[in-house]
Amino acid sequence: MNTEQNAVNQTQHQNSEGNQSGPNDSGNSEREFKQVRASMHSAITLNKTEVLDDVLNNFSEGYFSLSHENRRNLLLVLAREYDLDRSQVRELIKQCLGLDLPSDKAQVSGPEEDSLFSSFYRIERNLRHALKPVYEDLFDRLNTHPGGLRFLSNLRADILSILAEENIASLRALDSYLKEKLSTWLSPAALELHQITWDDPASLLEKIVAYEAVHPISNLLDLKRRLGTGRRCFGYLHPAIPGEPLIFIEVALLKDVAQSIQDVLWDSPPIPETEATCALFYSISSTQPGLAGINLGKFLIKRVITLVKREMSHISTFATLSPIPGFMQWLLSKLASQTLLAEADMSQQLADGSSSTFYENILNPEEEEALMGLPKDNVDGTNGMEVMFNLLTSKSYKWIHSPEFLSVLKKPLMRLCARYLLQEKKRGKALDSVANFHLQNGAMVERINWLADRSEKGLSQSGGIMVNYVYSLEHIEEYAHSYFTNGEIHASPVLHHYVEVMASA
Amino acid sequence: MNTEQNAVNQTQHQNSEGNQSGPNDSGNSEREFKQVRASMHSAITLNKTEVLDDVLNNFSEGYFSLSHENRRNLLLVLAREYDLDRSQVRELIKQCLGLDLPSDKAQVSGPEEDSLFSSFYRIERNLRHALKPVYEDLFDRLNTHPGGLRFLSNLRADILSILAEENIASLRALDSYLKEKLSTWLSPAALELHQITWDDPASLLEKIVAYEAVHPISNLLDLKRRLGTGRRCFGYLHPAIPGEPLIFIEVALLKDVAQSIQDVLWDSPPIPETEATCALFYSISSTQPGLAGINLGKFLIKRVITLVKREMSHISTFATLSPIPGFMQWLLSKLASQTLLAEADMSQQLADGSSSTFYENILNPEEEEALMGLPKDNVDGTNGMEVMFNLLTSKSYKWIHSPEFLSVLKKPLMRLCARYLLQEKKRGKALDSVANFHLQNGAMVERINWLADRSEKGLSQSGGIMVNYVYSLEHIEEYAHSYFTNGEIHASPVLHHYVEVMASA
Repeated sequence: MNTEQNAVNQTQHQNSEGNQSGPNDSGNSEREFKQVRASMHSAITLNKTEVLDDVLNNFSEGYFSLSHENRRNLLLVLAREYDLDRSQVRELIKQCLGLDLPSDKAQVSGPEEDSLFSSFYRIERNLRHALKPVYEDLFDRLNTHPGGLRFLSNLRADILSILAEENIASLRALDSYLKEKLSTWLSPAALELHQITWDDPASLLEKIVAYEAVHPISNLLDLKRRLGTGRRCFGYLHPAIPGEPLIFIEVALLKDVAQSIQDVLWDSPPIPETEATCALFYSISSTQPGLAGINLGKFLIKRVITLVKREMSHISTFATLSPIPGFMQWLLSKLASQTLLAEADMSQQLADGSSSTFYENILNPEEEEALMGLPKDNVDGTNGMEVMFNLLTSKSYKWIHSPEFLSVLKKPLMRLCARYLLQEKKRGKALDSVANFHLQNGAMVERINWLADRSEKGLSQSGGIMVNYVYSLEHIEEYAHSYFTNGEIHASPVLHHYVEVMASA
Repeated sequence: MNTEQNAVNQTQHQNSEGNQSGPNDSGNSEREFKQVRASMHSAITLNKTEVLDDVLNNFSEGYFSLSHENRRNLLLVLAREYDLDRSQVRELIKQCLGLDLPSDKAQVSGPEEDSLFSSFYRIERNLRHALKPVYEDLFDRLNTHPGGLRFLSNLRADILSILAEENIASLRALDSYLKEKLSTWLSPAALELHQITWDDPASLLEKIVAYEAVHPISNLLDLKRRLGTGRRCFGYLHPAIPGEPLIFIEVALLKDVAQSIQDVLWDSPPIPETEATCALFYSISSTQPGLAGINLGKFLIKRVITLVKREMSHISTFATLSPIPGFMQWLLSKLASQTLLAEADMSQQLADGSSSTFYENILNPEEEEALMGLPKDNVDGTNGMEVMFNLLTSKSYKWIHSPEFLSVLKKPLMRLCARYLLQEKKRGKALDSVANFHLQNGAMVERINWLADRSEKGLSQSGGIMVNYVYSLEHIEEYAHSYFTNGEIHASPVLHHYVEVMASA
């Protein structure tokens, strides 16, 4: 469900807007709340022709003026007081139970079947309508109101940020309903793929600068480079949210699949486009936190590949240079828990010499030896995993500046990273969100790159390792299919080799 | 519901495609049917990533190759064998009945309420999903498939043409569901207003020629005139149906509100645009019979008015010159039934001298006298209504060529036309579909025009009378509201005067 939510980086611009408390916050907040609540009530309950643009504008402007606390309260009112007429539902389902269900549909056909089922059609239709929460009207009305779709996206961003703090059943039901509605409205059929260039309006380009969160854009010159020779940028736009791509992807045209992000960001000057053989997707950013969980990216990559291939038939490789956002978190918790188990083992000194069933030394003997062989004045730990944990969590990543540490850490980090990408799963899917995103789109894991992103963020997420996923045109559908049906992850021999070394250790 | 379905003219281009029987129709039709049925089954039941573009293409191409009869059978299979799992629904509603419904929601609030309702949220959500027919998957998949939305619109056109012949409950349920889905996908937020000009691609302009059904476009020169000086044309486009407006409206810039369609179509040369004070909507055509009943026009007129006003602030009057498609049908059936009742009255010679309660002479004495005074060698009838009926239904509209007939008919026809527009209703709304369309958009009835459309179609629909509806900027919302809530029809004093004459007669 949440693949893309985590897979692509999302900024929180809207939310900052939301948390502003006006200067007269404490004095007027109760009165303000009541006003907005009244305008929300009007927007929902007035009949269709009465719901003028004014009412909806009042409501959305009023909403934005509320404090975080008041927004929360208002959303709870919406979720609880504008859901279903449960007694009406009950009445209809009693009617439905009163109908005789034909035991086998195949026994009757033609006009007899039709008259038999016509009561079902009627009651089922009524029941479907009765099960629609009243707040659907508000969503529908806002959707057809200028600026309303963007407002709904902001509203959902607020709901998600509240749910991240407290789990409220009614609010979760509201969110799930709103998410379904947004998915329908933002179906790929309604999205337009737009190539973003230096000729686009500054108001659109500033959005790219604001929302590019994978590799931040430092200034206008940087932006111009990303739209210039040897580069492409594509975005999905929705007619109701003009001038602001919902998601965009940046592409570099290169001779080879890049091994480090510095190669991409600082290859000055870029090679002539005619010499390029590889299109590298080096950044995908979605701009609307309120659209989390709605897969906007799926069709994007396929369509961009088609467009690039059409323009430049000499491009034969389509690959990514991607972060591995969950690797360090997984590794550190693994190291910490195993270290604890190791200590427990030691203290218990089990009589039969067997170790705890949960204990697993995730290092192989060679790696263990190398880690324990480090000079003790610099590192701390009673076993390899503890040493590794302490090194990786040391202040300002001191390991990155020491050739000795680097040479000892490289082997286990690369091997465990391959294991993480290829073998660690959640509900049958890759544990890493970006991996899951690309694998479900039909990519394969091609290569992992040591010290490919030395930025603070790169080090904290994945120890500086980045991964190339490759989209092989003739296998996209096949790979997507086998991943979807049985979680099979396609990878290059090099990647498999890392993991086999592990298995034999 | 069906306002726009009838309000705007719809051509049947798609259907002609559908009725083509292939050369090998009789020989292969059974085998073809089975193939298409199998591809439809795959398109519905394969899991998401297996539903490749190929499967959907196979199905839609296969569908178009089927004969009318086989399409009908296939649609019945879809409607009957891919609807609901009724035993699952039954199971869920039993679960739902098992829950205690709190008597008053206001009594509990906060966390207690939430835990109380969380079972409801879960079961209601499951029930909502269980009530979705299986064929929704086919619709959803086609919607995200290139060309799929257009295909669904053609599919629905077929369904509607079958339902026009036979009322099949399962097919009606299918239609109602598909219509709801299409309404969502074609929400105004997803539609783009586009000014159609001579600079548009010929492939788009040929659609305008093909679909303009109100006042057919005879040749390229005619088209060029309708897009040239003193004219505007606007259309709604959907990104998934590129190059083909779903609905379009033609506007003439004039000095005064035109009284006849000839004034609009043949005002050669048009006046300079700076001298115009009136924007006259003289034609609205929708292009997709499969979108019947989905109100695409509502926001169109409002948005076009805003655009025109912005470009030319000297335009102060926004009006239509519209057909009255239902007038003759209503009048002739009224005349026929009253004539029959009159004869029955005569033959019964009721003892007390009272006439039948259902009998109403819709002519006033003056009109009756004038009609009966016509020379008997040319007309036939024992009373005014019979004479009128016979005149109006005479071969090749002979009344239109006779100054004598015209002078006698004008008064009753104009008066009864005003009555038809202002007083004849169905479920509280104007009986005439075009009247209902404009009134619900907030227009008023301004003027009816004698001999405003002498074309065959104009004479057969409305005896050549046309009507001007006026959109008064400051009253649009108010009029739409009072029409919506209590069916109030706003009209000019002239129109009211016609009707009052009637009342006093």
